[in-house]
Amino acid sequence: MSRIYNFNAGPAAIPLEVLETAQAELLDFNGTGMSIMEASHRGKAYEAVHNEAIANLRELLGISEDYAVLLLQGGASTQFSMVPMNLLLPGETADYTNSGSWGSKAIKEAKKVGNVNVAADCGKEIPTRVPRVSELKLTAGAKYLHVTSNETISGARWNEYPDVDCPIVADMSSDILSRPFDMSRFGLIYAGAQKNLGPSGLTLVVVRKDLAEGAPENLPTMMRYKTHIEENSLYNTPPCFSIYILMLVTRWVKKIGRDNLYKQNVDKAAKLYAAIDGSGGWYKGTAVKEFRSDMNVTFRLPSEDLEAKFAAEATKAGFNGLKGHRSVGGIRASIYNAVPVKAIDDLVAFMNQFKASNG
Amino acid sequence: MSRIYNFNAGPAAIPLEVLETAQAELLDFNGTGMSIMEASHRGKAYEAVHNEAIANLRELLGISEDYAVLLLQGGASTQFSMVPMNLLLPGETADYTNSGSWGSKAIKEAKKVGNVNVAADCGKEIPTRVPRVSELKLTAGAKYLHVTSNETISGARWNEYPDVDCPIVADMSSDILSRPFDMSRFGLIYAGAQKNLGPSGLTLVVVRKDLAEGAPENLPTMMRYKTHIEENSLYNTPPCFSIYILMLVTRWVKKIGRDNLYKQNVDKAAKLYAAIDGSGGWYKGTAVKEFRSDMNVTFRLPSEDLEAKFAAEATKAGFNGLKGHRSVGGIRASIYNAVPVKAIDDLVAFMNQFKASNG
Repeated sequence: MSRIYNFNAGPAAIPLEVLETAQAELLDFNGTGMSIMEASHRGKAYEAVHNEAIANLRELLGISEDYAVLLLQGGASTQFSMVPMNLLLPGETADYTNSGSWGSKAIKEAKKVGNVNVAADCGKEIPTRVPRVSELKLTAGAKYLHVTSNETISGARWNEYPDVDCPIVADMSSDILSRPFDMSRFGLIYAGAQKNLGPSGLTLVVVRKDLAEGAPENLPTMMRYKTHIEENSLYNTPPCFSIYILMLVTRWVKKIGRDNLYKQNVDKAAKLYAAIDGSGGWYKGTAVKEFRSDMNVTFRLPSEDLEAKFAAEATKAGFNGLKGHRSVGGIRASIYNAVPVKAIDDLVAFMNQFKASNG
Repeated sequence: MSRIYNFNAGPAAIPLEVLETAQAELLDFNGTGMSIMEASHRGKAYEAVHNEAIANLRELLGISEDYAVLLLQGGASTQFSMVPMNLLLPGETADYTNSGSWGSKAIKEAKKVGNVNVAADCGKEIPTRVPRVSELKLTAGAKYLHVTSNETISGARWNEYPDVDCPIVADMSSDILSRPFDMSRFGLIYAGAQKNLGPSGLTLVVVRKDLAEGAPENLPTMMRYKTHIEENSLYNTPPCFSIYILMLVTRWVKKIGRDNLYKQNVDKAAKLYAAIDGSGGWYKGTAVKEFRSDMNVTFRLPSEDLEAKFAAEATKAGFNGLKGHRSVGGIRASIYNAVPVKAIDDLVAFMNQFKASNG
């Protein structure tokens, strides 16, 4: 077996150690005589997995008991609707920021539900970035302010969150558990699992319990946060196997040490950006420097032909998933928690070599 | 490793052969150098899995091109809302049948959306059953008729569907791919995967394309069937690993032969019901005989104490998941496709022995 270097944007690399554990116990989980996939979601074996995943997330993300940790389905795309359906009541306004593809989808869905003020829009700027705090045009009495903490496609991220009176709601799909943040400044955060948390088919939502209380009574039961808060995300059958992998991933983070991992992420990204910036302009980062993402490193080559050649040769050399998103082109290296330092070092060497041969 | 007999109601038994394949390729799927969990949902490796799962379902369930096969998230509980949100327009009425816990939940959600006529209600009858065609009080011009083809909790099922002018919509969560049915009589069917199709976190929806066309424009994008029809269930990241297991399960069904499997299901259930009926009334089936389910065999013992003892001793003897649903008590043996004949034979022997020791 030969494992490649995985730079996919999501679904993405999962720690090898986690996969090895899952493989070892796939036919017999913890002496139960069955796979965790075959265990009842109401039984003790699964319940322990479920609750450990939640407890580990509370510890790693610093989530107090004022918040509920929900393990849901449907991806961030479903949260684009659930957030306003639960939080935005008739007559109220929510502030949204647009920083690209994901922010723009969140706005589109929110507008179907209620009043939306776009507080800042740099979604189509190139080089890419997220809004500056100073340029936000906020609504007095807004119900919440929505941000996309990290734009997976453009490779730009928020470094500093605004000091606002209303709760901040953040789509953290592509940078959750990758860098420090202060949960108490947010009313709700959500993230598809398939980048830093585990496999696809699982969505993490952390919501301040008091905010979920005010949702309209006649929402579909499954679209109501309160349903899932009251039932510890066991109102109906959860995506058990994905939650099991999430649990193993959180164990892996605890073992390495969250802060060590955060530091490693900074170092990994710095190495790649150094290779880009040290190329004399041959490689060009696509995000404004101060907004560069440590998770999705996006850059261009002198021509689209060279980008295609780069991606093809990289794939042959064992670097997978480097082609930029189809909507923007270019190159993107998604370097989530599970992408090892060696993958970065070898990619830097490949980039230097490719430039030498084609520059 | 010792595998137990798995009679769980869902998540439930998965074919051993499927688990073994998944285990063997968990770190390196098909020579890609990564787990299928780590593969991009836009890449060739995953795409082949996705499309094979859909093609196999089309073949096994006899689904014509008039219908779309959707692989969604959120379980049947989400479909309880999506069905009326998409199909039931203002001023229209849908007929619903109540045959127990699941039918009743479907009705509750539909009532939030539009006009609902309960065409028959035997949800609280004991012995349990589903409505007879002759007792349905149908609405002239109803948009659709909703049925729960098999009630997992009560162990009762529809044998004969009514001849109605409107499309039938069926929650087939617990008997999909277990017995023959004529897809052309249905407008839409849905099923949580965690019984006969694979792991939890995946919902199959088969919908007649023309019916999905009329949905209101302002539905949340993720709650709109048309979104998923147009994008082949790849509008956002699907639950890739669960779909991979579904694909392996459909391969397994094709290898055994669908009709052989259906026949085996009849035989398995017949053996259990024979043990119940041959016990001189000591074991008592909870469903009216003509409505007995071949998937969820429910029965009572002379006392609740004996039921508790039965479940406990069965667990010790390697029969897992026999305790009835917490809302109704009693004993339930869920004998989905992946439960082997030997598990039934050994359970019958256990039942006879238990009666001999306690009768």
